[in-house]
Amino acid sequence: MSATGWEERRARAALTRIVEPGDETVGRWLRERGAARVLRSLAGQEELPGMAPRRVAGYRLRYARADPDTDLAAVAALGGRFVCPGDVEWPAQLNDLGDQRPLGLWVRGRASLRPWALRSVAVVGARACSDYGTRVAATLAADLAERGWTVVSGAAFGVDGAAHRGALAATGATIGVLASGVDVPYPPSHAGLIARITEQGLLVGELPPGDHPTRSRFIMRNRVIAALTRGTVVVEAKLRSGSLITARRARALGRLVMGVPGPVTSALSAGVHELLRGEGLLVTDAAEVIELVGRVGDDLAPERQGPVVARDLLGQEAARVLDGLPAQGSADVETIAVQVGMGLDETLSRLHELRALGFVERESDRWVLTSVARR
Amino acid sequence: MSATGWEERRARAALTRIVEPGDETVGRWLRERGAARVLRSLAGQEELPGMAPRRVAGYRLRYARADPDTDLAAVAALGGRFVCPGDVEWPAQLNDLGDQRPLGLWVRGRASLRPWALRSVAVVGARACSDYGTRVAATLAADLAERGWTVVSGAAFGVDGAAHRGALAATGATIGVLASGVDVPYPPSHAGLIARITEQGLLVGELPPGDHPTRSRFIMRNRVIAALTRGTVVVEAKLRSGSLITARRARALGRLVMGVPGPVTSALSAGVHELLRGEGLLVTDAAEVIELVGRVGDDLAPERQGPVVARDLLGQEAARVLDGLPAQGSADVETIAVQVGMGLDETLSRLHELRALGFVERESDRWVLTSVARR
Repeated sequence: MSATGWEERRARAALTRIVEPGDETVGRWLRERGAARVLRSLAGQEELPGMAPRRVAGYRLRYARADPDTDLAAVAALGGRFVCPGDVEWPAQLNDLGDQRPLGLWVRGRASLRPWALRSVAVVGARACSDYGTRVAATLAADLAERGWTVVSGAAFGVDGAAHRGALAATGATIGVLASGVDVPYPPSHAGLIARITEQGLLVGELPPGDHPTRSRFIMRNRVIAALTRGTVVVEAKLRSGSLITARRARALGRLVMGVPGPVTSALSAGVHELLRGEGLLVTDAAEVIELVGRVGDDLAPERQGPVVARDLLGQEAARVLDGLPAQGSADVETIAVQVGMGLDETLSRLHELRALGFVERESDRWVLTSVARR
Repeated sequence: MSATGWEERRARAALTRIVEPGDETVGRWLRERGAARVLRSLAGQEELPGMAPRRVAGYRLRYARADPDTDLAAVAALGGRFVCPGDVEWPAQLNDLGDQRPLGLWVRGRASLRPWALRSVAVVGARACSDYGTRVAATLAADLAERGWTVVSGAAFGVDGAAHRGALAATGATIGVLASGVDVPYPPSHAGLIARITEQGLLVGELPPGDHPTRSRFIMRNRVIAALTRGTVVVEAKLRSGSLITARRARALGRLVMGVPGPVTSALSAGVHELLRGEGLLVTDAAEVIELVGRVGDDLAPERQGPVVARDLLGQEAARVLDGLPAQGSADVETIAVQVGMGLDETLSRLHELRALGFVERESDRWVLTSVARR
């Protein structure tokens, strides 16, 4: 399950309580010395070269209150886990962030993060979006999910929420990336939506349980969305909006940056149009998005190349669901769930995971083994 | 006034009655033998190699009815003229059409075609456009005209009409390019608009007086719009629409192709979005259009380089209007018209001509000599 020793994992969990997301100085230390040593140096009193004394002082205060065992237990009690670089579930594309790579990710939900993120697209945009933005985001996300792509967003108001809802409505795969602990629904009025994401999809964040978002944490959260996905689609954004920062970040990481145009008379499309006049690619529907993201990173894409992991390396639940599919023909999720004796959401999560790994295909509302999986 | 001899000019006028616009075979003959000889060979009975016998027969029937002296007199009676390649008023950029270059252009209106076309942009799009398309086309055209650019379009319903109206409302320069004779308003219900274009702007066409448009003449008309202008802006177009053909033509001629995005939920923007996903450049307002077209063809652009023709080469009316401007400061068009004793529309046409030639500048509603003209 893990390539990371227990002490390193525990130290990384502790560091998520202490270190602000995206701290490059700590990232460099981690790379040079490992997490356990970095944690010990934050415990001590020696000078830490390359970091402002005020920040060192802040981190040392937090160190005193860090309790990784309690945090790990709390998230485990919610059915979650802490995923570290090197873990089977770790999405290797996050390593592109270099010294800004997350220390680890707190994850809730049944599916495995890595295969889901392999075929994922971010759909982001204005919080105060228009009806047009809501409609476009929901439709785009539903169609992406319908075609086997995972929709990643930030669970915020407006475009984010519409994107998650669209993917959920299509019984598709969706990942909510929070700027808070995965037990802290933010915004609070999205608690219901975030619970549904957790049930049917995945909830992910860098911050330990109980932590709240701040302005800089939102910005740093956006780098995770950008790095996790093959590309970012901006649906409505004013000039100088946060979504454009995510897009620029995605671009810097070599990901595709796409934008959905809108009326030139709408200020909510002005930022998108600015993007499209620069490096952004114009997309009008899911098929166009997939045509673009499907082209890049074919090293990541299992599609048409058969499974990316051997059948006997599948998790227990995924293997059970795979065995529940008919050898010939297709079955709907209810039939498969009854067959394997698992809940609907759990079955669906595993089916999407198997889809991402190349074992099954979705045909509208039904599921079928790929020719490779049938052999 | 003219570099073309009377016989050649008369032959070209006759050929506009006989030859379909854009006939490349005739274009090649013209290049090789001159208009008078081509006309004579259409009069005779000898075989014409390289042209289908049926077409030759059709042209010979038309030859029998051609009466260039009557046509030239009819258009002159309407205050118009026949402009030939090589004339002072001939827009040299039309030569880019090669053997598809118009035989000549029938022109109505007070201004000189060449300087107006030097700084011109085509604004085209769907006939059955939406309210959004109407609003965007009118605003874009008004702002282009306000900034001294000539708005060229086809006088059709929808985007074309809105573009002309926007330019006229801004007391700006506009050119209507017809697929019929310049005395045949098409569509008929645009007779009022076309009359206003003729009064305040320029009306242009390849076809002799009395001729009506056909499907192929519309398509060939579009090549004139594409070639005449520095760039073409498409405002609303369905997939596979005629405006996209104009745009493709413009692109093939090395002109800029631009598109105004709209809601992805509108079929009337789908063609524009397709264009923008290819070679088209996204623009949202006049400033962005000018930024693009202002860059190219600086050899054509007199702006900031002083007048492109010497003062004593100006036409009589243009020279009179130029003399009517104050040596210092600005004047409005009414003051200048009174000063020089000309009508408002005529004065305005000449001011736009002088603007295109680099002698005057527009400052909102007032006109001022350029520093070069002041010397």
